[in-house]
Amino acid sequence: MNAAAHRGLIEAFWRHANARDWPAFGALLAPGVLYEMPQTRERVRGRQSYVEFNRTWPGDWRVVVERIVADASQGVSEIRFLVDGQDMTGLNFFVFEAGLIQRITDYWPEAYEPPARMSTVVERC
Amino acid sequence: MNAAAHRGLIEAFWRHANARDWPAFGALLAPGVLYEMPQTRERVRGRQSYVEFNRTWPGDWRVVVERIVADASQGVSEIRFLVDGQDMTGLNFFVFEAGLIQRITDYWPEAYEPPARMSTVVERC
Repeated sequence: MNAAAHRGLIEAFWRHANARDWPAFGALLAPGVLYEMPQTRERVRGRQSYVEFNRTWPGDWRVVVERIVADASQGVSEIRFLVDGQDMTGLNFFVFEAGLIQRITDYWPEAYEPPARMSTVVERC
Repeated sequence: MNAAAHRGLIEAFWRHANARDWPAFGALLAPGVLYEMPQTRERVRGRQSYVEFNRTWPGDWRVVVERIVADASQGVSEIRFLVDGQDMTGLNFFVFEAGLIQRITDYWPEAYEPPARMSTVVERC
Protein backbone atom coordinates (compact mmCIF):
# COMPACT_ATOMS: atom_id res chain seq x y z
CA MET A 1 0.00 0.00 0.00
CA ASN A 2 1.10 3.54 -0.57
CA ALA A 3 1.56 6.51 1.75
CA ALA A 4 -1.97 7.84 1.20
CA ALA A 5 -3.52 4.47 2.06
CA HIS A 6 -1.41 4.26 5.23
CA ARG A 7 -2.47 7.76 6.21
CA GLY A 8 -6.06 6.56 5.73
CA LEU A 9 -5.42 3.57 8.01
CA ILE A 10 -4.23 5.87 10.81
CA GLU A 11 -7.24 8.14 10.32
CA ALA A 12 -9.55 5.12 10.48
CA PHE A 13 -7.77 3.79 13.58
CA TRP A 14 -8.56 6.96 15.56
CA ARG A 15 -12.01 7.42 14.05
CA HIS A 16 -13.06 3.90 15.08
CA ALA A 17 -11.47 4.35 18.51
CA ASN A 18 -13.40 7.57 19.11
CA ALA A 19 -16.60 5.84 17.94
CA ARG A 20 -15.90 2.79 20.16
CA ASP A 21 -16.47 0.72 17.03
CA TRP A 22 -14.27 -2.17 18.17
CA PRO A 23 -15.04 -4.59 15.31
CA ALA A 24 -13.99 -1.93 12.76
CA PHE A 25 -10.99 -1.01 14.91
CA GLY A 26 -9.92 -4.64 15.18
CA ALA A 27 -10.23 -5.14 11.43
CA LEU A 28 -7.34 -2.70 10.92
CA LEU A 29 -4.99 -4.83 13.01
CA ALA A 30 -2.89 -7.81 12.00
CA PRO A 31 -3.73 -10.91 14.08
CA GLY A 32 -0.27 -10.75 15.65
CA VAL A 33 -0.19 -7.00 16.23
CA LEU A 34 2.35 -5.87 18.83
CA TYR A 35 1.68 -2.78 20.94
CA GLU A 36 4.58 -1.29 22.87
CA MET A 37 4.96 1.52 25.41
CA PRO A 38 8.73 2.00 25.80
CA GLN A 39 8.40 4.50 28.66
CA THR A 40 6.81 1.93 30.98
CA ARG A 41 8.27 -1.14 29.29
CA GLU A 42 4.78 -2.51 28.72
CA ARG A 43 3.40 -4.38 25.75
CA VAL A 44 0.22 -6.02 24.52
CA ARG A 45 0.33 -8.85 22.00
CA GLY A 46 -2.33 -9.89 19.52
CA ARG A 47 -5.44 -8.35 18.02
CA GLN A 48 -7.90 -9.55 20.64
CA SER A 49 -5.79 -8.38 23.57
CA TYR A 50 -5.07 -5.03 22.00
CA VAL A 51 -8.75 -4.39 21.25
CA GLU A 52 -9.50 -5.34 24.89
CA PHE A 53 -6.81 -2.95 26.12
CA ASN A 54 -8.45 -0.06 24.26
CA ARG A 55 -12.04 -1.10 24.94
CA THR A 56 -11.45 -1.10 28.69
CA TRP A 57 -9.52 2.16 28.85
CA PRO A 58 -11.22 4.14 31.62
CA GLY A 59 -13.01 7.46 31.26
CA ASP A 60 -14.92 9.28 28.55
CA TRP A 61 -11.78 9.81 26.47
CA ARG A 62 -11.56 11.34 23.05
CA VAL A 63 -8.66 11.66 20.60
CA VAL A 64 -7.96 14.69 18.43
CA VAL A 65 -5.49 13.97 15.62
CA GLU A 66 -3.03 16.85 15.26
CA ARG A 67 -0.68 15.44 12.63
CA ILE A 68 -0.11 12.34 10.53
CA VAL A 69 3.05 11.44 8.62
CA ALA A 70 2.98 8.26 6.55
CA ASP A 71 5.13 6.57 3.96
CA ALA A 72 5.08 3.27 2.09
CA SER A 73 5.75 1.13 5.18
CA GLN A 74 5.31 3.23 8.32
CA GLY A 75 3.32 6.08 9.80
CA VAL A 76 3.15 8.36 12.83
CA SER A 77 0.35 10.29 14.48
CA GLU A 78 0.60 13.13 16.94
CA ILE A 79 -2.60 13.24 18.99
CA ARG A 80 -4.25 14.94 21.90
CA PHE A 81 -5.78 12.45 24.31
CA LEU A 82 -8.55 14.23 26.20
CA VAL A 83 -9.98 12.62 29.32
CA ASP A 84 -11.38 13.93 32.61
CA GLY A 85 -10.11 17.46 32.01
CA GLN A 86 -6.62 16.21 31.11
CA ASP A 87 -5.06 17.06 27.75
CA MET A 88 -2.17 14.72 26.95
CA THR A 89 0.06 14.51 23.88
CA GLY A 90 0.48 11.06 22.35
CA LEU A 91 2.97 10.10 19.65
CA ASN A 92 2.08 6.85 17.92
CA PHE A 93 4.37 5.02 15.51
CA PHE A 94 2.75 2.46 13.21
CA VAL A 95 4.37 -0.27 11.10
CA PHE A 96 2.19 -1.64 8.30
CA GLU A 97 2.24 -4.87 6.38
CA ALA A 98 -0.21 -6.02 3.73
CA GLY A 99 -2.63 -3.24 4.58
CA LEU A 100 -2.81 -4.01 8.29
CA ILE A 101 -1.23 -2.50 11.40
CA GLN A 102 1.53 -4.86 12.55
CA ARG A 103 3.12 -2.82 15.29
CA ILE A 104 2.30 0.28 17.32
CA THR A 105 4.79 2.09 19.54
CA ASP A 106 3.32 4.79 21.75
CA TYR A 107 5.07 7.64 23.55
CA TRP A 108 3.47 10.01 26.05
CA PRO A 109 5.81 12.97 26.61
CA GLU A 110 5.03 15.10 29.65
CA ALA A 111 5.69 18.73 30.46
CA TYR A 112 8.79 19.52 32.52
CA GLU A 113 10.72 22.55 33.68
CA PRO A 114 13.53 23.44 31.27
CA PRO A 115 17.14 23.13 32.43
CA ALA A 116 19.58 26.02 32.29
CA ARG A 117 20.57 26.53 28.66
CA MET A 118 24.06 27.09 27.28
CA SER A 119 22.89 29.67 24.75
CA THR A 120 20.70 32.75 24.96
CA VAL A 121 18.74 31.95 21.81
CA VAL A 122 16.00 30.00 23.62
CA GLU A 123 12.69 31.77 24.22
CA ARG A 124 9.88 30.67 26.52
CA CYS A 125 6.39 30.70 25.05
CA MET B 1 10.42 17.25 -3.03
CA ASN B 2 9.30 13.70 -2.54
CA ALA B 3 9.31 11.39 0.46
CA ALA B 4 12.71 9.89 -0.37
CA ALA B 5 14.31 13.32 -0.61
CA HIS B 6 12.81 14.33 2.73
CA ARG B 7 14.11 11.15 4.31
CA GLY B 8 17.51 12.12 2.94
CA LEU B 9 17.22 15.58 4.52
CA ILE B 10 16.59 14.05 7.95
CA GLU B 11 19.52 11.65 7.50
CA ALA B 12 21.76 14.58 6.51
CA PHE B 13 20.51 16.64 9.48
CA TRP B 14 21.70 14.04 11.99
CA ARG B 15 24.85 13.14 10.04
CA HIS B 16 25.99 16.77 10.01
CA ALA B 17 25.02 17.21 13.67
CA ASN B 18 27.11 14.18 14.68
CA ALA B 19 30.02 15.50 12.57
CA ARG B 20 29.66 19.01 14.10
CA ASP B 21 29.62 20.27 10.51
CA TRP B 22 27.60 23.40 11.29
CA PRO B 23 27.80 25.03 7.86
CA ALA B 24 26.38 21.87 6.24
CA PHE B 25 23.81 21.55 9.04
CA GLY B 26 22.72 25.16 8.62
CA ALA B 27 22.38 24.76 4.86
CA LEU B 28 19.49 22.31 5.46
CA LEU B 29 17.50 24.94 7.36
CA ALA B 30 15.18 27.64 6.04
CA PRO B 31 16.31 31.12 7.15
CA GLY B 32 13.20 31.44 9.28
CA VAL B 33 13.29 27.92 10.76
CA LEU B 34 11.26 27.50 13.96
CA TYR B 35 12.37 24.99 16.59
CA GLU B 36 9.88 24.07 19.30
CA MET B 37 10.01 21.97 22.47
CA PRO B 38 6.38 21.65 23.61
CA GLN B 39 7.24 19.91 26.87
CA THR B 40 9.17 22.92 28.20
CA ARG B 41 7.35 25.53 26.10
CA GLU B 42 10.68 26.66 24.63
CA ARG B 43 11.47 27.73 21.12
CA VAL B 44 14.36 28.95 18.98
CA ARG B 45 13.75 31.10 15.92
CA GLY B 46 15.91 31.48 12.84
CA ARG B 47 18.74 29.55 11.24
CA GLN B 48 21.60 31.28 13.02
CA SER B 49 20.05 30.90 16.46
CA TYR B 50 19.15 27.29 15.88
CA VAL B 51 22.65 26.40 14.68
CA GLU B 52 24.00 28.16 17.80
CA PHE B 53 21.63 26.21 20.02
CA ASN B 54 22.97 22.93 18.65
CA ARG B 55 26.62 24.03 18.41
CA THR B 56 26.70 24.94 22.11
CA TRP B 57 24.88 21.82 23.37
CA PRO B 58 27.09 20.54 26.19
CA GLY B 59 28.84 17.18 26.32
CA ASP B 60 30.30 14.74 23.84
CA TRP B 61 26.86 13.80 22.53
CA ARG B 62 26.06 11.49 19.64
CA VAL B 63 22.80 10.66 17.90
CA VAL B 64 21.79 7.21 16.66
CA VAL B 65 18.86 7.29 14.26
CA GLU B 66 16.43 4.46 15.04
CA ARG B 67 13.61 5.25 12.61
CA ILE B 68 12.62 7.78 9.95
CA VAL B 69 9.16 8.27 8.47
CA ALA B 70 8.80 10.86 5.71
CA ASP B 71 6.18 11.92 3.21
CA ALA B 72 5.84 14.68 0.62
CA SER B 73 5.68 17.50 3.19
CA GLN B 74 6.70 16.21 6.61
CA GLY B 75 8.98 13.77 8.36
CA VAL B 76 9.73 12.27 11.77
CA SER B 77 12.81 10.73 13.31
CA GLU B 78 13.08 8.56 16.39
CA ILE B 79 16.57 8.88 17.80
CA ARG B 80 18.76 7.88 20.70
CA PHE B 81 20.63 10.84 22.13
CA LEU B 82 23.72 9.52 23.88
CA VAL B 83 25.65 11.79 26.23
CA ASP B 84 27.62 11.26 29.46
CA GLY B 85 26.33 7.72 29.93
CA GLN B 86 22.73 8.79 29.38
CA ASP B 87 20.63 7.21 26.64
CA MET B 88 17.58 9.36 25.84
CA THR B 89 14.85 8.88 23.25
CA GLY B 90 14.08 11.86 21.03
CA LEU B 91 11.14 12.21 18.65
CA ASN B 92 11.64 14.93 16.07
CA PHE B 93 8.92 16.18 13.74
CA PHE B 94 10.06 18.07 10.64
CA VAL B 95 8.04 20.24 8.27
CA PHE B 96 9.67 20.86 4.89
CA GLU B 97 9.22 23.54 2.29
CA ALA B 98 11.13 23.97 -0.95
CA GLY B 99 13.72 21.42 0.11
CA LEU B 100 14.54 23.06 3.43
CA ILE B 101 13.56 22.38 7.03
CA GLN B 102 10.99 25.00 8.05
CA ARG B 103 9.94 23.70 11.43
CA ILE B 104 11.18 21.17 13.97
CA THR B 105 9.14 20.00 16.96
CA ASP B 106 11.04 17.87 19.47
CA TYR B 107 9.69 15.56 22.16
CA TRP B 108 11.77 13.83 24.84
CA PRO B 109 9.62 11.14 26.49
CA GLU B 110 10.96 9.79 29.77
CA ALA B 111 10.54 6.48 31.53
CA TYR B 112 7.89 6.26 34.23
CA GLU B 113 6.25 3.63 36.39
CA PRO B 114 3.08 2.26 34.80
CA PRO B 115 -0.29 2.93 36.46
CA ALA B 116 -2.66 0.14 37.45
CA ARG B 117 -4.24 -1.21 34.27
CA MET B 118 -7.92 -1.99 33.69
CA SER B 119 -7.15 -5.13 31.70
CA THR B 120 -4.89 -8.11 32.25
CA VAL B 121 -3.54 -8.14 28.72
CA VAL B 122 -0.57 -5.88 29.49
CA GLU B 123 2.83 -7.52 29.90
CA ARG B 124 5.96 -5.95 31.35
CA CYS B 125 9.14 -6.43 29.34
